[in-house]
Order: sequence, then C-alpha cells, then structure tokens
Amino acid sequence: MSQKTIIIGGVAGGASAAARLRRLDENAEILVLERGPYVSFANCGLPYRVGELIKSDDDLLLASPGLFRDRFKIEVRTGNEVRSIDTEGKTVSVRDLSTGEDYSESYDNLVLAPGAKALRPPIPGIDLPGVFSVRTIPDAREIQRWIAAKNADKAVVVGGGFIGLEMAENLKHLGLEVTLVEMLDQVMPPMDAEMTRPLEKHMSAKGVRLALGDGVSSFTEAADGKLSVQTQSGAKHEADIVILAIGVQPETSLAQAAGIDLGERGGILVDDRMRTSKPDIYAVGDAVEKIDTVSGQSMLLALAGPANRQGRIVADNIAGRDSRFRGVQGTSICGVFDMAIGSTGLSEKALQRLGVTNYRSVYLHPAHHVGYYPGAETLHMKLIFDSEDGKILGAQVTGKTDVARKLDVIATYIQMGGTVYDLEEAELAYAPQFGAAKDAVNLAGMLAANTLRGDHFPVSPTQAIPEEVTLLDVREAAEWDRGHLEGAVHIPLGSLRDSLDKLAKDQPVWVYCHVGKRGYDAQRMLRQHGYEAYNMSGGWLSWGERVILKRR
Amino acid sequence: MSQKTIIIGGVAGGASAAARLRRLDENAEILVLERGPYVSFANCGLPYRVGELIKSDDDLLLASPGLFRDRFKIEVRTGNEVRSIDTEGKTVSVRDLSTGEDYSESYDNLVLAPGAKALRPPIPGIDLPGVFSVRTIPDAREIQRWIAAKNADKAVVVGGGFIGLEMAENLKHLGLEVTLVEMLDQVMPPMDAEMTRPLEKHMSAKGVRLALGDGVSSFTEAADGKLSVQTQSGAKHEADIVILAIGVQPETSLAQAAGIDLGERGGILVDDRMRTSKPDIYAVGDAVEKIDTVSGQSMLLALAGPANRQGRIVADNIAGRDSRFRGVQGTSICGVFDMAIGSTGLSEKALQRLGVTNYRSVYLHPAHHVGYYPGAETLHMKLIFDSEDGKILGAQVTGKTDVARKLDVIATYIQMGGTVYDLEEAELAYAPQFGAAKDAVNLAGMLAANTLRGDHFPVSPTQAIPEEVTLLDVREAAEWDRGHLEGAVHIPLGSLRDSLDKLAKDQPVWVYCHVGKRGYDAQRMLRQHGYEAYNMSGGWLSWGERVILKRR
Repeated sequence: MSQKTIIIGGVAGGASAAARLRRLDENAEILVLERGPYVSFANCGLPYRVGELIKSDDDLLLASPGLFRDRFKIEVRTGNEVRSIDTEGKTVSVRDLSTGEDYSESYDNLVLAPGAKALRPPIPGIDLPGVFSVRTIPDAREIQRWIAAKNADKAVVVGGGFIGLEMAENLKHLGLEVTLVEMLDQVMPPMDAEMTRPLEKHMSAKGVRLALGDGVSSFTEAADGKLSVQTQSGAKHEADIVILAIGVQPETSLAQAAGIDLGERGGILVDDRMRTSKPDIYAVGDAVEKIDTVSGQSMLLALAGPANRQGRIVADNIAGRDSRFRGVQGTSICGVFDMAIGSTGLSEKALQRLGVTNYRSVYLHPAHHVGYYPGAETLHMKLIFDSEDGKILGAQVTGKTDVARKLDVIATYIQMGGTVYDLEEAELAYAPQFGAAKDAVNLAGMLAANTLRGDHFPVSPTQAIPEEVTLLDVREAAEWDRGHLEGAVHIPLGSLRDSLDKLAKDQPVWVYCHVGKRGYDAQRMLRQHGYEAYNMSGGWLSWGERVILKRR
Repeated sequence: MSQKTIIIGGVAGGASAAARLRRLDENAEILVLERGPYVSFANCGLPYRVGELIKSDDDLLLASPGLFRDRFKIEVRTGNEVRSIDTEGKTVSVRDLSTGEDYSESYDNLVLAPGAKALRPPIPGIDLPGVFSVRTIPDAREIQRWIAAKNADKAVVVGGGFIGLEMAENLKHLGLEVTLVEMLDQVMPPMDAEMTRPLEKHMSAKGVRLALGDGVSSFTEAADGKLSVQTQSGAKHEADIVILAIGVQPETSLAQAAGIDLGERGGILVDDRMRTSKPDIYAVGDAVEKIDTVSGQSMLLALAGPANRQGRIVADNIAGRDSRFRGVQGTSICGVFDMAIGSTGLSEKALQRLGVTNYRSVYLHPAHHVGYYPGAETLHMKLIFDSEDGKILGAQVTGKTDVARKLDVIATYIQMGGTVYDLEEAELAYAPQFGAAKDAVNLAGMLAANTLRGDHFPVSPTQAIPEEVTLLDVREAAEWDRGHLEGAVHIPLGSLRDSLDKLAKDQPVWVYCHVGKRGYDAQRMLRQHGYEAYNMSGGWLSWGERVILKRR
C-alpha cells in the first residue's frame, strides 16, 4: 500500500526530500504545499538578482511544479498555505490563497520545511514603505521596482552579515550610494573582529560607507517621502531605500500551534533522523535546531547545504532506511566585491562564549600561490586548535583568491576529526599557478604544531601588548621605514645573531616581521640564546593593521 | 658538543632540512654542498621562465647563499660537487668546480638531496645541439638563447607529462608552432585516458598539434641546422628546437658508489625517518623511493611538496626527535593554457596494474558554481572508491576553474581515510560565486554511496557497450538533435513514466542524459518498474565524447 507524504515548503530542504523520496519509492504519494508562488528557487541568488548580475527571475527557478510532476510524479501546489496540523487525525488544513478556500489533506508522513523569516524587531518605523527584507523573489522584484520608481540614489543597509554585505555590493553596482549600519564593531558578526578588518578596508575602498558599532534606533519618513535612519549614537543616514538584513528566525508558528516541541534557541526540535516530537512528523532546514559537531551544542544555522542534506535524510527515513544527520560545523563564505570571507568550525568568540579555554590560535598571511608566479594574492588566515590534542576547532579566511579552497580543506579536516599534525602532512595540489609546495594549509599546520611541540611561542593580535616587553622588529630597513610599531627596536633578522648584545635579557621579547615567518626564526634563535621570546603571530599584517584600524 | 651536518643538494628537500635544522638547533654546524650554481631555486617555475611569464632568473631564486649565512648561519657552497662518500670514515670528497681542486669534509650526519635528472634514453640523435631538457636555470637560459639565436619558429616537445605540457604552452606563448609527441595515446600518462580528453581537445583548440600514441625513433639534423624528429609510426616533425620531457630518474650514482641500498624502482631506499642503509646518512626528495599510502607500494615521485616535508623530517631526526614520513598519495596538478588537470590517490590504470579489482568509479560533470550565477564552468571528475567499504582510492579532475580546490578536498579525505559516505556529508564553503549547496564533492559522494547502497547502477565509459542492451537517451529533444549515441531510443525523462510500454523488458537498459543526473532518475524509475537498468556514468559528456574522440 502506498504511503502519502505531505511536504510543507518547497524550497531547499523540502524539494530535496521530495525528489529523493521519489527516487527511493516509485509508489509513494508525494504532495508539496508551498505558500509562496515558487518552489525550488535559489534564494541565495536574490541579492545578485537585485543587482542585475542575474538577468531574470527565471534564472533563479531551479525546478517548476511541472517538472516535479513530469519527472517525479510529485504534486506541487504553490499558493497553498497550511493553516494547521491535526497531529492526532494526521491531517492538515490548507488554504488555497488564490481562492481563499480551505480544505483538508490527510498524510501518513508529514515533513515541515517552512524555512526562516526575516527578523523584524519592533524598531519605530520598521514597517514604513521603502524598508525591505530580501527573502523571496517578490521581495527582490519589489526592491527593484522601488529603486526605479523613486529614482533612488541613496541606500542604507542595516546588518553586516551575508545578506547585508551582498546587498551592499549589489546596490553599489546599481550605482547607489550605500551606507552599511551594523550594531557590532565589525561586519560578519559570527567571525572574530580582527579577521574582518581586511574586508572592511576593502569595502571602504570600494565606496561603501561603513557605520559599525552603531544600532538603528528608528526609521522615519520625511514629507517628501525620503527615509531617514536614526542610530543609537545619534547619527542620521538619509535613504531612498532601506534594506533590513539583521538576520532570520525559524518559521515555527505552525509547528508550535500543533504542539511540536521547540528547542532552546526557538527552532523546531528534531533528532538525528529529523523526527520531531510528534509521530510521523519530520522537520528540516532553516526552521530546525542543529547540533554543532565541534561544540556539541544546539544551534540555528540558515544554510542551503545542510537543508538539502537533511531533506535527503528525511526521505531515507520515510522510505524505511536508517539514515542520520551528522550535524553542522557552520562552514560559510561570503563574496563581497572581489574579495571573499568565510569560516568553518568555531570562532574564538564562540569558544569564549562556551567557556572553552584550552585552545590556541595562529595567524598567517600566505600568498595564494608562489610569489614568483605573477598574480599572487595575500590570504589572511586564522587557525584555532585544541591546545592539548591539536584537534582543529575552527578557521577563518579572507582574501581575493582561493578563500573557498582553504576553507573547504580545513572544513574537511574538521569533519574528519583532523589535527594540526595532519595539516602539516597535507599533500595538496601544487603547481606554480595553484599554490605552493608548502601550501598555506601546511604552513598553518606547521605553525600550530610547532606551538604544541613547544618550538613556537605565538602571541595573538587580540592580546594587549604589556608594558614590560621589548618589541623587536626583524624586518628589513625598507619595511621598517614604511611603518612599524611604536617603541619597537629594529634589528633585521640577518643581523640579529651578531647583535644580541643590544637586546636585554631581563624582560620578554616580542618579535615581529611582516607575516610571522622571520619572526618565528628570530624567536627560535632568541629562545636558544636564553631569551623569553614570543612571535607576534601574523606579524605586521596582523599587528600593524590593528593599530591602523584603531586610529580610523 | 656541536654536530656537523653536511647536506648534498640545496634545492627543495636539502634547503628545507638545512633551515629546519637551524631552527631546532642553534649550535649545529651545517654545510650545504651544491654542484650547480644555485640553491633553493624554483625549478617548478622554469617553463614559465622560458615563456617569459616570469621576467627574470632572480624571481626563481628563493634564497641565496648569503641569506642562508646571515639568517641561518648555514654555509652554502655552490659549484661544489661531492665526488664520493667514505661511509666508514664519515667524510665526503668534494671538488670545487671553479678551481678543479678536491678536498675532504667530515660529517656527523649526512643528508643526500641530489634530486633527479632528466631521462635521456639512447635514441639516435638525442645529444644533438637543439635538443634540451628543462631541469635547471641554465637549461632555461640556454633554451631562450637558442630560440633567439635560431629565430626558431617550430618546436617539438617530446613527452606529455607536466613539463611537456607546460613547455608546450609556454613555447606557444612565445609564438612558436608546437607539436607534442607522446608515446601513449593520451597526455598526463599517470591518469586514466578518458579523463585527459577534455584537455587534449583544449590544447588542440589552442593550436598545439598533438601526436599521441607515437614514440620518437630518432632525431636528425639537416645541413641547414634544422632538426627533425622521426617517430615509430614513420612521421617526421620538423623543428628548430626540441624539448625532451619524457620524465626523470633519481640521481643515485653517489649513493650507489657509497654502497647505499637502492630500491626496486631505482631510488635510494629509506625508512620512514628518511634513514638510508648506512649509519647517519639520510636521503630526501626526488632521489628516494616513497611509500604510496593508498596502495602501500614503493614508488618514485618527483614533487616539491613531499621533498620539503621529508627535509623537515630529516632535520627533526638529526635533532634527536622521532619524526616520521607518512608517505605520499601522489596529489598533483598541471595548468595548461586556462585549464587544469590533476589527480590524487590511485588511477584506475594504477589499480589494474596492482591487480586490484574491488573498486568502482563514477563520473560527473558539475558546474564549478551554481548555474544561475554568471560564469559557471564545467568540471570533469572521476571518483574511484573501494567497492566494499567505500574508502576513497583516487580522484581525477579537469576543467577551467576550481580543479585544485576539488583535488585538495578529496586529497584530504584520502589522507584522513575518508569514505564516499563522508563526501556525501561534506559541509563546504558555499555562496553563489563559490560553489553549490550540493557541492561537486557532495555529488561525487552521493553517486558513489548510492552505488554501494544498491540504488545506483553505473556503467563506466571505459566499458564497451554490449550488443544486447537497449540504449536509452532521456534528454530533451534539442539535446538529442545536437548529437546522440547510435542506436539509442529517445524518450525524455519527463515522458518516460508514461512511455514504459515502448521499452522492452527483455534486455538490460543503459540510460544516459547529459551528465548522468537525469540518467540516475530514469534508472531509479526503471529498476522499480522491473527493468535491469544501468546509468551510463557521466552521460553524454563522457560517452558522446568517447565516440567523438575515437573518430578523430
């Protein structure tokens, strides 16, 4: 006897579940109910649709109801909203939004894939016309229409996460003046602040005004229809259009009304087979809480990749297989102008929030390929690892090229339980155009493993420099002349061994070079000559930057 | 008491050993003896130096003897050739090539890092002027001089491996007509032939004449100084210059004369601490045999990455640490014009040579990022895995973008002992510019895992198509019209479920689509309707290509 599965929500997780279930069971009855006008649309592409880089809405439609019907014998009803679930009677009450008529459908299995909705906190004026979220194709269309109708030339983007950054870029592409307002003193709030600095500089250089460390207090509309964004610091940003991108929250009203358990973070609670607290009801995607595999904690994470994987797992379980979701590690990346920024695993910030203290971190700035081949771009990397067993806990990377590649590799080590000793031994693809014989990943592993072996004593650019240390700059004269840390002693590495008499032994020596490599050589040398030497991890590019950025 | 270490050879492995040893031991006495004029030069960059993409020899010099002296207190003597080793007396006999004088040096530890030399089989005419190898900076210089002096416009490159391909590209950049002669019927001999086809097409399109499946029988010089390359098939290729790039062999004469054991493949035999058969003598780099971690077999591999890692390990062991080399997995990549090709782990060819039969493979052609974002490029991938436990054995990738990234990720899984089930669950960096929510790596894992679970029945484009099968093309009409397999039945996937009466059940059905995705859907459907259906892995891009290439 064939079973009937109803899937509520037809985007990433829901669509994956539907297609996979058909592949596994040719006889299953499958019905997808989608409140919106589209299923299987690429919401990740919306900012680029607004920016006209993607030319047509059709490009974002990955599969139509007709395709689901013909290829998969799956019935898709768009514009049909599920109003309630009778978990005892195993029926859902549905409203056809085009006719306003309500009807009921029974199910054997129910999959909730309702997604997340934009956060809209009760800020005065948040519902004014001209204040937009970016979640759906109609949203993107409305934004484009508004820009055209108002002949808009000033935009304020509120929120410095993925969508905010992508929208800032795309509005800039459209020729608007863009101000980005973010409550924290950095973009990409989940990342460590010192790792977002290169991107912030880049965005400023591209003409985006950054108003960091400042929250919105209200939105107002003048008599001429112009909007104004007031912030907590008292600043006012004029705008023809405002994009609200301060995050999302799980869409749980339906589940909650049906008595399905929610978790501590407000998402639908599921087990590793994606089962909710009610029999034969599963949930997937942005609406559910996920276990972070690195911390073991429950979390919310609105990403398409995990949603798709969960969709597959639901289908497996409905088809009678024992398939489990391994959890998430939060790998993510964001492209902004011609840079990228991203992370995998835990940030230092997240570790501190969890109360974890037995970790170390190293910073490096390797070229994405050998320096002698034209076009080498600098990568900025931070690797965080367990200070006892060397397990990799997280990595953050930013730069112009190969950011995704480095993140992917380290994400893989994290998935596989790899250590910094494994990174040292990585055998990666090398040719002059594609890396270095000692890949950035190897270098990160070596710096970290050298630390755990007691060869490398890094200090972190997040640390304050104590009064009682000698700051030692071991770069060449030309580098020193371009800028150096205040109070530093300058002895180029090549002269250091013969100049030790100039360096007092009575206090610690903090050494730096441009990126940390010569600093490490100097630190090794000094330690063996009896100094309490530390390598200022990341060198001038991490520490000099820090000072410069403070001065801004 | 300080120990004296002599290192013979100052390029990748030797230079790494020297620098690391100093970092570990400030008191060690370290002497590097290098026969050639340079240490620490980037031989990987030589083809690009010939092609003038790299503007100066200096760009290829990563560290000078002066830098070794000043920064590392390491004495480097270039132009000093070790003539013999007295393993009992622990001395080496050295000739200063500038003066012709011989002298002796004692050692506590000796590191052999002599590298490899170009293979020069006894082909008639191989020593003619104008026939060059590409191993050193002077080689590159001589090639450039010859091209200028002879006003060369025709080049023949012999050998389709890394150096041959890179030289073909660079000579083409210089405006020469280039013919590439390779004995095998493919470029990149270690890879499986069907994976090299896209690159061969690309090189032909870029104007490189490929003469594959044809070995050189002789080189001759005409009265006017023009060279001619005769092949076994009877062809003659005129040339103003010939580049010989048919591989390298370990430089073992010194070791052999000293009674140091060599391995079966002709390389210096070392244990996992890089110790040779003689006490206190180590060896690293291209000259030594390495254990392939995937097959467990001894092999030769001339790559800078493993050489550097071995150098570090030697230094650790000399400094009294227990540090082991884990072996190699043969990760490599080659850029040719704007394409790349590479592999990690074992090829199908290598598995067959080892007599391994319990493996499967899948082919796929995913876009490097989502199709809706402009600029998506096709990747061609082959994943080989253990047919019992799903362990990843190898991968081959070619395409224009992200080839290195995919190789790096799969190389990491291989290093970590990952399975195809791990690939399915990979959580990689995704944003529209940087991949897909279902990454190519996920797709490869799904195809492979579906195979092992008995859901996917792939047949490989290396297999012959039997007489007694129904070939089924499930693509759309427009795709069919552009080309299809001879004798195939055409039923688009969307109509298949309602057209099963047209499809006989009395013989197996081999299904294909463009890349294998719809073929998989069709195969799932057909299996559940009682057909013995197989998915033609890689679809038209693998199978159509095969036919087209045969016709060439």
